[in-house]
Amino acid sequence: MSLKMVVNLQGIVTPRSDRPFGELEVREGVAIVVEAGKIKAIAPEEELLKQFPDAERIDGEKCWAFPGFVDPHTHPVFAKTREEEFEMRIEGRSYEEIAAAGGGIRNSVRALRKTSFDELVELTYWRVREFLDYGTTTIEAKSGYGLSLEDEIKSLRVLKHVASLLPITIVPTFLGAHEIPDEYRSRREAYIDLLIKEMIPRVAEEKLAVFCDVFTEKDVFSVKESEQILIAAKDYGLIPKLHADELSPLGGAELAARVRAISADHLVQISDQGILAMKEADVIPVLLPGTTFFLGKPQYAPARKMIAAGLPIALATDYNPGSSFTQNMSLITSIACTQMKVRPAEALWAATLGAARAIARDKELGSLEVGKKADIALHRVPNYLYIPYHYGMNHVCKVLKEGRVVVEK
Amino acid sequence: MSLKMVVNLQGIVTPRSDRPFGELEVREGVAIVVEAGKIKAIAPEEELLKQFPDAERIDGEKCWAFPGFVDPHTHPVFAKTREEEFEMRIEGRSYEEIAAAGGGIRNSVRALRKTSFDELVELTYWRVREFLDYGTTTIEAKSGYGLSLEDEIKSLRVLKHVASLLPITIVPTFLGAHEIPDEYRSRREAYIDLLIKEMIPRVAEEKLAVFCDVFTEKDVFSVKESEQILIAAKDYGLIPKLHADELSPLGGAELAARVRAISADHLVQISDQGILAMKEADVIPVLLPGTTFFLGKPQYAPARKMIAAGLPIALATDYNPGSSFTQNMSLITSIACTQMKVRPAEALWAATLGAARAIARDKELGSLEVGKKADIALHRVPNYLYIPYHYGMNHVCKVLKEGRVVVEK
Repeated sequence: MSLKMVVNLQGIVTPRSDRPFGELEVREGVAIVVEAGKIKAIAPEEELLKQFPDAERIDGEKCWAFPGFVDPHTHPVFAKTREEEFEMRIEGRSYEEIAAAGGGIRNSVRALRKTSFDELVELTYWRVREFLDYGTTTIEAKSGYGLSLEDEIKSLRVLKHVASLLPITIVPTFLGAHEIPDEYRSRREAYIDLLIKEMIPRVAEEKLAVFCDVFTEKDVFSVKESEQILIAAKDYGLIPKLHADELSPLGGAELAARVRAISADHLVQISDQGILAMKEADVIPVLLPGTTFFLGKPQYAPARKMIAAGLPIALATDYNPGSSFTQNMSLITSIACTQMKVRPAEALWAATLGAARAIARDKELGSLEVGKKADIALHRVPNYLYIPYHYGMNHVCKVLKEGRVVVEK
Repeated sequence: MSLKMVVNLQGIVTPRSDRPFGELEVREGVAIVVEAGKIKAIAPEEELLKQFPDAERIDGEKCWAFPGFVDPHTHPVFAKTREEEFEMRIEGRSYEEIAAAGGGIRNSVRALRKTSFDELVELTYWRVREFLDYGTTTIEAKSGYGLSLEDEIKSLRVLKHVASLLPITIVPTFLGAHEIPDEYRSRREAYIDLLIKEMIPRVAEEKLAVFCDVFTEKDVFSVKESEQILIAAKDYGLIPKLHADELSPLGGAELAARVRAISADHLVQISDQGILAMKEADVIPVLLPGTTFFLGKPQYAPARKMIAAGLPIALATDYNPGSSFTQNMSLITSIACTQMKVRPAEALWAATLGAARAIARDKELGSLEVGKKADIALHRVPNYLYIPYHYGMNHVCKVLKEGRVVVEK
């Protein structure tokens, strides 16, 4: 088996599976040996050069090696961007005006339904490519702009196809419960029936998703409806996830605990009881500070409260055309640090191993440790504080996916 | 004289000198002819191809051409970054603790004084290079970490030297009145004397700066002291600028109007009278929303109030190691839009022609118009809304400085 070795690094910065949340290991002067796409050894460079003299060398260009970012909450399968909505929101237009002008989830649904599989593959491909450019090597990606059996399946197949074309791991989530589609507005029970009796079984049968997510929110899916959907999903082997307590403290966090969701996401309005419940049930809070920033809202999720309660957080971009249009996870760490007072080490932990936990991939992803995938982002920074500190910049110098150089600048 | 032509563009997006603030001209299908570093013609591509068949072609790669960003407020000459301070602030440490650990302006002063001209050139060179990478072709740059005759002169000479090495316009500002240095803490009048009687005359004599800036703030320079300094600067031909009303409503805006400053910057706490006074005296407000963001403060400068009063704003990064560490002007437009409700067209105007006005270079910079410098940033975006909308990303495809391609991605 051919070996590769990343040499000439400043060193590595990584969370470790055996260390607590927020603690980063910093090792100077080490190199990384890769075999069959996995990390085989991390040790002082001169030792490894003696031990594996024939390994193919990859030049670390004096960068620091970090685990590739894991982005555990994205919505990349859509037909149209919504920049007009961005402008109208800034101008203070009402939700109704924005919807009339083509904004909102339901307009995205109308557009996606009219767009072919091939077109969606093309659009999604370039969007996902940009995650790699900014150092992200794994994304969770949701359907949710189809909202019919056919269009949800189409969206998930797009993700599967794009994953086969690009050197990035895409972990798919079924989000048929993103909204009630137009044609079911007056008979929501029938849509929930469709979700439970047709869509979930079909998604599970075709193995198109790992998770089932629900947008639990006032005027979208109630806690009771969400519970119904998620329990059905579990029966079919899909692990629950929730959009919870984003706009109102509806008890989404408590529901996430009850159904043993892997994560509850957003949580701007989470209650103290919700935090406790999640802690007890080991549900990972996925925080999306980019969304709060992008929407210009004053209140961020109470990250410090969660951390103080012993809940290790994860960070994500929430990449989507309506409420957070970025692929830059470094900037998400900056927003987390400056607006939520998350410490830089905590933010980096949350964007790698924390994020991997939120998609149940922490055994194989999210840290530079022997046996894990060699998903490595080399950042041209003098130290790890720079990632959130030098904000809005892309520090990526090289990205390796399973040991192969896939981005080089 | 050899001609160049930027062809294969989607078109151009630009403010125009004869149009009001916030109005962008969008022309599809045009090309740009450059002669001797200046724009000679902008017209439909097929016309120009006939008219100038021998012009050397530059491929626009189907991008939109924008004026290069003008960043009218930066502090790039310093010895050490201050990422530890960033972390300590997030942890809630006091100003005293931060200063003791090496934070704050005065620590930057101590470090700069120990750093040689050559080292500072090297450090500043790479920092300024990054502005270009993100589409900025002109920066205003301040001294202000020297605070002695020798070290302020050294800083300004560093700027002059770096400007000779890089294809970027650097407009220098003398900011000897950035702080009272340690050795003058107990005799501030003596420092003001030094500023007025030695530093300003010397800076003017060596033609090392165009502007003289003062940090007018509680516990730094009072309104009265600032006025004294700026009037002296004017006598020596240096145009006044102010750091005004950032932390407290001290009347810095009114002072800017009184001394006919070209700009007053920050203005988070500006009074209504201050806005009126600036409007009447034609002082440009330079807003620095990145600083508010980076420091995690809740209140941004009242941009909408200023615009409503008929004051055309400018935007800048405030690039510096303590309170805003970014060179990305696109992100500054995103922060302006999402946090200050500045419209995308206004933000782009403020980051180009508005910014050029704030440094008195609007006759030659800040828009794509015949006769102006051919400082052109090609952004790979479908429309101009994308620059703030697709936030935290670098859309630059090519940058031309005076018609020469200086960045290519």
